[in-house]
Amino acid sequence: MLPDFTTPDDFRALLAAAPSPDGAATEAARSRNGQLTKPPGALGRLEDLAIWYAGWRDDPRPSIMAPQVIVFAGNHGVAARGVSAFPAEVTVQMVANFRAGGAAINQLAGAAGARMDVHALDLDRPTADFTRGPAMDERDLMVALRTGWKAVDSQADLLVVGEMGIANTTAAAAICLALFGGEAADWTGRGTGVDDDGLLQKRSVVADAVERHGAHTDGLAVLARLGGREIAAMAGAIAAARQLRIPVLLDGFICCAAAACLQALDARALDHCLAGHQSAESAHAELLRHLGKEPLLSLGLRLGEGSGGALAINILKAAVACHSGMATFAEAGVAGDD
Amino acid sequence: MLPDFTTPDDFRALLAAAPSPDGAATEAARSRNGQLTKPPGALGRLEDLAIWYAGWRDDPRPSIMAPQVIVFAGNHGVAARGVSAFPAEVTVQMVANFRAGGAAINQLAGAAGARMDVHALDLDRPTADFTRGPAMDERDLMVALRTGWKAVDSQADLLVVGEMGIANTTAAAAICLALFGGEAADWTGRGTGVDDDGLLQKRSVVADAVERHGAHTDGLAVLARLGGREIAAMAGAIAAARQLRIPVLLDGFICCAAAACLQALDARALDHCLAGHQSAESAHAELLRHLGKEPLLSLGLRLGEGSGGALAINILKAAVACHSGMATFAEAGVAGDD
Repeated sequence: MLPDFTTPDDFRALLAAAPSPDGAATEAARSRNGQLTKPPGALGRLEDLAIWYAGWRDDPRPSIMAPQVIVFAGNHGVAARGVSAFPAEVTVQMVANFRAGGAAINQLAGAAGARMDVHALDLDRPTADFTRGPAMDERDLMVALRTGWKAVDSQADLLVVGEMGIANTTAAAAICLALFGGEAADWTGRGTGVDDDGLLQKRSVVADAVERHGAHTDGLAVLARLGGREIAAMAGAIAAARQLRIPVLLDGFICCAAAACLQALDARALDHCLAGHQSAESAHAELLRHLGKEPLLSLGLRLGEGSGGALAINILKAAVACHSGMATFAEAGVAGDD
Repeated sequence: MLPDFTTPDDFRALLAAAPSPDGAATEAARSRNGQLTKPPGALGRLEDLAIWYAGWRDDPRPSIMAPQVIVFAGNHGVAARGVSAFPAEVTVQMVANFRAGGAAINQLAGAAGARMDVHALDLDRPTADFTRGPAMDERDLMVALRTGWKAVDSQADLLVVGEMGIANTTAAAAICLALFGGEAADWTGRGTGVDDDGLLQKRSVVADAVERHGAHTDGLAVLARLGGREIAAMAGAIAAARQLRIPVLLDGFICCAAAACLQALDARALDHCLAGHQSAESAHAELLRHLGKEPLLSLGLRLGEGSGGALAINILKAAVACHSGMATFAEAGVAGDD
């Protein structure tokens, strides 16, 4: 069902030929929405969410039964440059915590009734420090993209991808600066909580990296030079979900940086994605504007792991439950507006 | 466990003596929060929610297992003044829809794992048109307050109250104008969707009502003169929840107008309440500012029924699940920030 790829050109071709929402299902869902026992528009954004979801699932009265949360973990050579409040060994420790069920994302996936998978990508082989050279070569990039691509369960009906990787807000900031321009300070935030000196250091590292590699509009080039394995894997998973018509709830800054690389490759590549939340990481709001996504939630989260995306699953579930479960005016014998 | 009351003075005395959150449980929850495997503050508002909930439940590691949603319905004499896009008989039709499981709130309560109860208050006996005289006499007010008070399940661990009552945004607007001042236009919105002429008529009715009854700071006087049975019942239920240490997620404009009457009686009366959402009903944002509540969600809902409060249940559940289910740094063997 899911095609495979081996080269960057194969991947680009798959993105370009990806499916779109079903027009007939969208229209049938819109018609149903207009007959439900509520004043027109009274469920606000929930109505749009349900119609959008129905189109992607090609089902005018859909349900969400099998959400999947995937957390990808990677290590970054740039962590040695003092850009994080936490030491690099925390990546592998947190992967153990995910597998033991002790992290925030475990609780949030559980609260959303979602299956959760964890993929650790070569943690003993950090990417290269991208202030010195490309983070990954083409082979490493393709392995990471394909890891994400293959991690998506074809039977899932909703996807959240998250990440763990000490120093990966630095990589995400560099990706944004390379893709969208501006100043390093525009894209660099405190991540897990660096102090003022740490923030200056991060900015300097981000500026150095983009000065070395230059601005780019090619999403795969940016992913390889400035990304990380978990970031490329997220991009691969988001792209695979599109092939499988599985809607995606984007998480925070790092997840959206991965998504931005796909958007740079194909302007429609994120049509099947919603922004689950707006993170407290300072540049996320601006990144969401570049993606053209309005967040469902804004509760000050800045954890990553897929936490904000997972928190939004129950919002989309509720929207779909209203749409598919409510009675129509005719069924309920309720008078319409006069 | 829950004391009873018969007179307005009894009710005032109960409000004044209502319990507060437990300080030791709050501090123990705050301490636990600081040890969980995440950067400090990275779960944003979820952390505050969990600590707040722990204090009210007197349990530093609580769970939410038994949310209750109660929908109160009432009919309004002022509906005859052309203030709604729907005819008054829709109130009783929608009560049948609630009981048959076909309304939005049924789906939202189900999606939140909440028990749902429906109380229809004398639908065949609308309140008086409050542009001519008081909506209710003291006896009717006390019956409605006590209906709400007794409707709360003492075993519930979270409460949402909602309403159905054609013309009740007009009553809520009049309550706000009487309590908070300003102009009728500041508090009068389109409700279920009146057109421009309907909106002008609503404003005129709201202004007439408050001109007749005058501004008041006494919440019970305002409830009787300008409220409705379902609005008084919501106030009774919110007050009972405080007695039972059951936190409340407030719904939209009408629910918050009921809550505002309690706050007018006692400045601390809503300490156990959070704003579940910000409604698209135009005056709700201003009403939330008067209540000092920041909404958890803002998704353009304007349905009532408890819909926005119920949608927020899963947010609070997720916050509590993270707080109580996550591993500590020590348990997980994860290094802290340096």
